[in-house]
Amino acid sequence: MRHDLRINLERLSAKLDALGDIGAIEGGGVSRLAFTEADRAGRDQVVEWMRMLGLSIEIDAIGNVVATRAGRSAGPGIMIGSHIDTVRTGGRYDGNLGVLAGLEVVERLNEEGIETDRSLAVAFFSNEEGARFAPDMMGSMVHQGHFGLEEMLQTVGIDGETVGAALDSIGYRGAAPCPAPSPAAYLELHIEQGPVLENEGITIGAVTGVQGISWTELTFTGQSNHAGTTPMRLRRDAGFAAGRMTAYVRQLTETIGGTQVGTVGSVNLEPNLVNVIARKATMTVDLRNTSEDDLQRAEGEMLDFAHRLAKDEHLELTHRRLARFKPVEFDPGLIDAVAVHARALGYSVTALPSGAGHDAQAFAPNCPTGMIFVPSAGGISHNVAEHTEIADIEAGANVLLNLAADLAG
Amino acid sequence: MRHDLRINLERLSAKLDALGDIGAIEGGGVSRLAFTEADRAGRDQVVEWMRMLGLSIEIDAIGNVVATRAGRSAGPGIMIGSHIDTVRTGGRYDGNLGVLAGLEVVERLNEEGIETDRSLAVAFFSNEEGARFAPDMMGSMVHQGHFGLEEMLQTVGIDGETVGAALDSIGYRGAAPCPAPSPAAYLELHIEQGPVLENEGITIGAVTGVQGISWTELTFTGQSNHAGTTPMRLRRDAGFAAGRMTAYVRQLTETIGGTQVGTVGSVNLEPNLVNVIARKATMTVDLRNTSEDDLQRAEGEMLDFAHRLAKDEHLELTHRRLARFKPVEFDPGLIDAVAVHARALGYSVTALPSGAGHDAQAFAPNCPTGMIFVPSAGGISHNVAEHTEIADIEAGANVLLNLAADLAG
Repeated sequence: MRHDLRINLERLSAKLDALGDIGAIEGGGVSRLAFTEADRAGRDQVVEWMRMLGLSIEIDAIGNVVATRAGRSAGPGIMIGSHIDTVRTGGRYDGNLGVLAGLEVVERLNEEGIETDRSLAVAFFSNEEGARFAPDMMGSMVHQGHFGLEEMLQTVGIDGETVGAALDSIGYRGAAPCPAPSPAAYLELHIEQGPVLENEGITIGAVTGVQGISWTELTFTGQSNHAGTTPMRLRRDAGFAAGRMTAYVRQLTETIGGTQVGTVGSVNLEPNLVNVIARKATMTVDLRNTSEDDLQRAEGEMLDFAHRLAKDEHLELTHRRLARFKPVEFDPGLIDAVAVHARALGYSVTALPSGAGHDAQAFAPNCPTGMIFVPSAGGISHNVAEHTEIADIEAGANVLLNLAADLAG
Repeated sequence: MRHDLRINLERLSAKLDALGDIGAIEGGGVSRLAFTEADRAGRDQVVEWMRMLGLSIEIDAIGNVVATRAGRSAGPGIMIGSHIDTVRTGGRYDGNLGVLAGLEVVERLNEEGIETDRSLAVAFFSNEEGARFAPDMMGSMVHQGHFGLEEMLQTVGIDGETVGAALDSIGYRGAAPCPAPSPAAYLELHIEQGPVLENEGITIGAVTGVQGISWTELTFTGQSNHAGTTPMRLRRDAGFAAGRMTAYVRQLTETIGGTQVGTVGSVNLEPNLVNVIARKATMTVDLRNTSEDDLQRAEGEMLDFAHRLAKDEHLELTHRRLARFKPVEFDPGLIDAVAVHARALGYSVTALPSGAGHDAQAFAPNCPTGMIFVPSAGGISHNVAEHTEIADIEAGANVLLNLAADLAG
């Protein structure tokens, strides 16, 4: 087992800074929503770095970019992947770290003149965040055959554009086959995006799996009317329903307990004026649990409540699923290998599940898949204040480098 | 007491249609937010009609337009007023009816060759709705000296423009003195915008006064974070607070009881994404009551709850008053005169308070003020489906005509 290789931290850090400057927003954050001009600029920069490393670059029909370093033998290789799109007010590390650490792995192998038996690919997958186009993990899920390509290309985003049109506008609809064969193993280094590692004072997380994720959009429709003249008993107030529903989601997480979390992150009222009862309220409910049974129970109770609320308030209710992923378990051998490499390199390590979705979960059903977490300062992510200490970035990338080199053989 | 004059319904109806076509939106409604291009077009049309009637037109510094038919004597005259701005998805009658019925009164007096002792003015006041710039009733309140002109001109709208800049862009910042002297009496014909007259099968409402109105903007600020990885207990979720607060406002109306109504019509979350805990929630609370004591109690309890909620959820809370009007009582002589004229003309009539704010309440503290209500079909207003039967429009305008002619002498 290798533990002799070390990444070039200065170089990796410079790349993180350079990519973070593309779509930079106030407060040190980044805004590169999928398939926007900012995303295009970020993609162009990473592709340029891939070219400089002599990698063979393929772009597929959903805009995934896979850059491969050839191995001595044919057949499935090792893939290191993540994403470079961000939420609207995101940080510099979420996704970006995994991709750029992958490039650093390649560059170190090149510098050391290490040939590997298996090929080694570095990939970034389209629209992992789902912040402009739901569902999230779109690129990796299409890549591994879980989502249909045509359906995803027709997905309409929050601004009314389709994925297909947006892809075309940034020039990233490629010709590589999609879905694609699975690699021999998939690895992803990512920031934790939660507070566990920091709170426990541990450097490396050997990720055991991913929480199940359920996204539902609820639309309540009533009647807009004058806020002064309409008696309370005669109202059909969609805005009230959105508020009551939001309060309920908190109650629901308490009822379900365990790892259950629930979030109403988006609410839009129409006409959204101070003195007009809202005619329509569109809102999202994000539910997550490591137990599929509990997640299904949460979903059922949430929809039951929404239907009862709509009935009581004389509203119409429609709902649609924006995303649904079952809880995922990663490969026991790779969970163990992450821990062993971390210890061999002198880092503290613990096993923990991921609260966030990751591209890795598209690979987990198809091939041995593993993830490495590094701490997020304050547990903060999807926020301009997202930060990971430079020493932790170095540690995570070193684990990735030695583990990938071992797997590639 | 006059009850011999009759309006020309066909002509009034044609003007309502023509004005309703300016800024028309799907479903039969109108969108002419204050000081927009649509508002300018509506203003230009009404001013043209005023010119055609030979009226002397004055525009003041907040864009109020007053068109005067001279009387035999100098001194304060009779004013008929209302507004022509609308909410974003408004109807064709709210405000417009009162202004156009005023023009019809003038035209009938002209046709009959009736000279009056006092002058008779028809006015439309700027930004009655407050839907783009809070507070509402801005023009009439400045006209009667309740709001400062300079402060109002600096008011920033929901789109970031100031009243002054918006007024300039539509060319309606005039030179007439403002505040202006009060008339000898002020009259306003308006749709009820509520269900009372229709439910009771009555044609004319003799309006006794206006509910007190309190508009508050609440801003909760927490921390945006990842919806999957942040445990419920560690969240600072501004979106949850907006929802809980919305549900509370309903509870509050039940606690206060009586005429208390409460509405959360506008909620804006940031960043407003499905998988990001909201960092910031800005919402409005509209509270109304005919009792000033009860309204103050409702305001106090609402703010107490908001502060407790912010503390419990580790959020910052700021609040600002967007509008505040005490309950208003109209002139007993004019309330009675409306009822007497209605009966003399053969219409059923009842006394009732207004649930909505009106320009009339700017005049009530300064001069004898009266309002005439006609039924709103289904009680619906601030909605494209707003409707008043043509026979009711005729009845209301006939009461206005004979009452105004009597008062002008």
